[in-house]
Amino acid sequence: MIEKSIGVFDSGIGGLTVYKSIRANLPKESIIYLGDTARIPYGTRSPATVRRYAYQDAAFLSRQNIKMLIIACNTISSIAMELLKESFPIPILGVIEPGAREAVRTSKNGRIGVIATEATVESGAYTKAIEAINPNVSVYAKACPLFVALAEEGWHNHTATRLIASEYLASLQEMEIDTLVLGCTHYPLLKNVIQSVVGSHVNLIDSGECVAKEVTTLLNKSEETDLENKATDIFYVTDSGKRFCRIAELFLGKPLENLIAVDIWEANAEAKTDPNW
Amino acid sequence: MIEKSIGVFDSGIGGLTVYKSIRANLPKESIIYLGDTARIPYGTRSPATVRRYAYQDAAFLSRQNIKMLIIACNTISSIAMELLKESFPIPILGVIEPGAREAVRTSKNGRIGVIATEATVESGAYTKAIEAINPNVSVYAKACPLFVALAEEGWHNHTATRLIASEYLASLQEMEIDTLVLGCTHYPLLKNVIQSVVGSHVNLIDSGECVAKEVTTLLNKSEETDLENKATDIFYVTDSGKRFCRIAELFLGKPLENLIAVDIWEANAEAKTDPNW
Repeated sequence: MIEKSIGVFDSGIGGLTVYKSIRANLPKESIIYLGDTARIPYGTRSPATVRRYAYQDAAFLSRQNIKMLIIACNTISSIAMELLKESFPIPILGVIEPGAREAVRTSKNGRIGVIATEATVESGAYTKAIEAINPNVSVYAKACPLFVALAEEGWHNHTATRLIASEYLASLQEMEIDTLVLGCTHYPLLKNVIQSVVGSHVNLIDSGECVAKEVTTLLNKSEETDLENKATDIFYVTDSGKRFCRIAELFLGKPLENLIAVDIWEANAEAKTDPNW
Repeated sequence: MIEKSIGVFDSGIGGLTVYKSIRANLPKESIIYLGDTARIPYGTRSPATVRRYAYQDAAFLSRQNIKMLIIACNTISSIAMELLKESFPIPILGVIEPGAREAVRTSKNGRIGVIATEATVESGAYTKAIEAINPNVSVYAKACPLFVALAEEGWHNHTATRLIASEYLASLQEMEIDTLVLGCTHYPLLKNVIQSVVGSHVNLIDSGECVAKEVTTLLNKSEETDLENKATDIFYVTDSGKRFCRIAELFLGKPLENLIAVDIWEANAEAKTDPNW
């Protein structure tokens, strides 16, 4: 019997922080990861475009042998969750709800900050999700567009990153938040700088870690857990594997294996074998 | 008689610096601009993907009534110039050659720096173009990935921009360059900071301005110059016009008119009327 995998997808590389958490929590589950690197970033695009791209990503993964789909991207989770749930008949988990739940559980003073891409902030997804859990909580959201570029540049502890973080986060500090949601899967790479800027009294919530925990709970409860399975991961990318490999090593701390470049937007999508094409 | 326009295209917004120069130099020529904002940026993508996207962009513009095609993007000029020249039977100008010619003309000590996206630097296009003009010139190229994000954030004179520029440009300063090519159409927005970091003895070359000058010369020489024409510009974008409008105002210093959102990758591309879709 061929065991089913967990499908994980993102606009590109950021979702690897979510992959990493799932991999650590569920060592026997196989994961198929898709990064739409030919069209990254989604965070600055319109909702209609994000929905179209997300649909194509999910359609590609649903043609693989997956039992569950994890949207490892805050922008897609904010904007395309409903569309994907309506379109694909498998369990689908995004990062917003798990992150929102953990933030509400964590906050003592009911003042929660959210940092994310422009698209995620404009969607208001975290604010809505947090207020749906507890309407008495105040949510302060702030877009931090430069953080993605800084994370990919590898400037995780750089003076410039500290300066930019101080400027972005000043308004949230004035609001006396005690909890800050890292609402973009790139941001955990800048955790040290962000923590030192906001101070140790502010709890950082990594949405990727939260969804990984929920996947673990879900699979441990169900009969889907592949306890006897030997995990094999596959990474699909839609553009050159070269750049993905380089940055993936920054994210995972080790080189990547099983990388396949693929066309997902062609009618008859076919995997290409050379990731450097 | 319907007058033909000049077609100008870019992966997104940066090409507006080229548009601005052409508009200033040729007040009576109509310009059709295409920004592929749904797939920006090209500068971090593989050559094959850049070529595919560039072909689709040029095919779309060639279906409009244009007499000349300007590639207002260094990445596309570096990688897809040959393909486009082979594919479309109209005059095609990129930004590399004009920038390279101007740099060689300007440099006194034969030491030229080039700053650009990762894709442009990796292509070696400026180095090849400069060395083809004068093999005795030394070229030092440096990718500055954060500059695009900083330009779009509007941080044109920010302390963080200065700090990042100092780090990026240090190696070029050590090479004692006297001329620096701004090899990405976003970079002219950061001109003040770049100039103050490298010092006033270094001449900055804006490739966009150079190609605009060459277009002017070319059209003044030919009978194509529409001296009686009343210029009308059209801007096509492939994603939400909202963000494009906001950033375009940073680039042009005034609001944009005649903006049309369009699908260029569908078989039967049709213009959509709502730029905020």
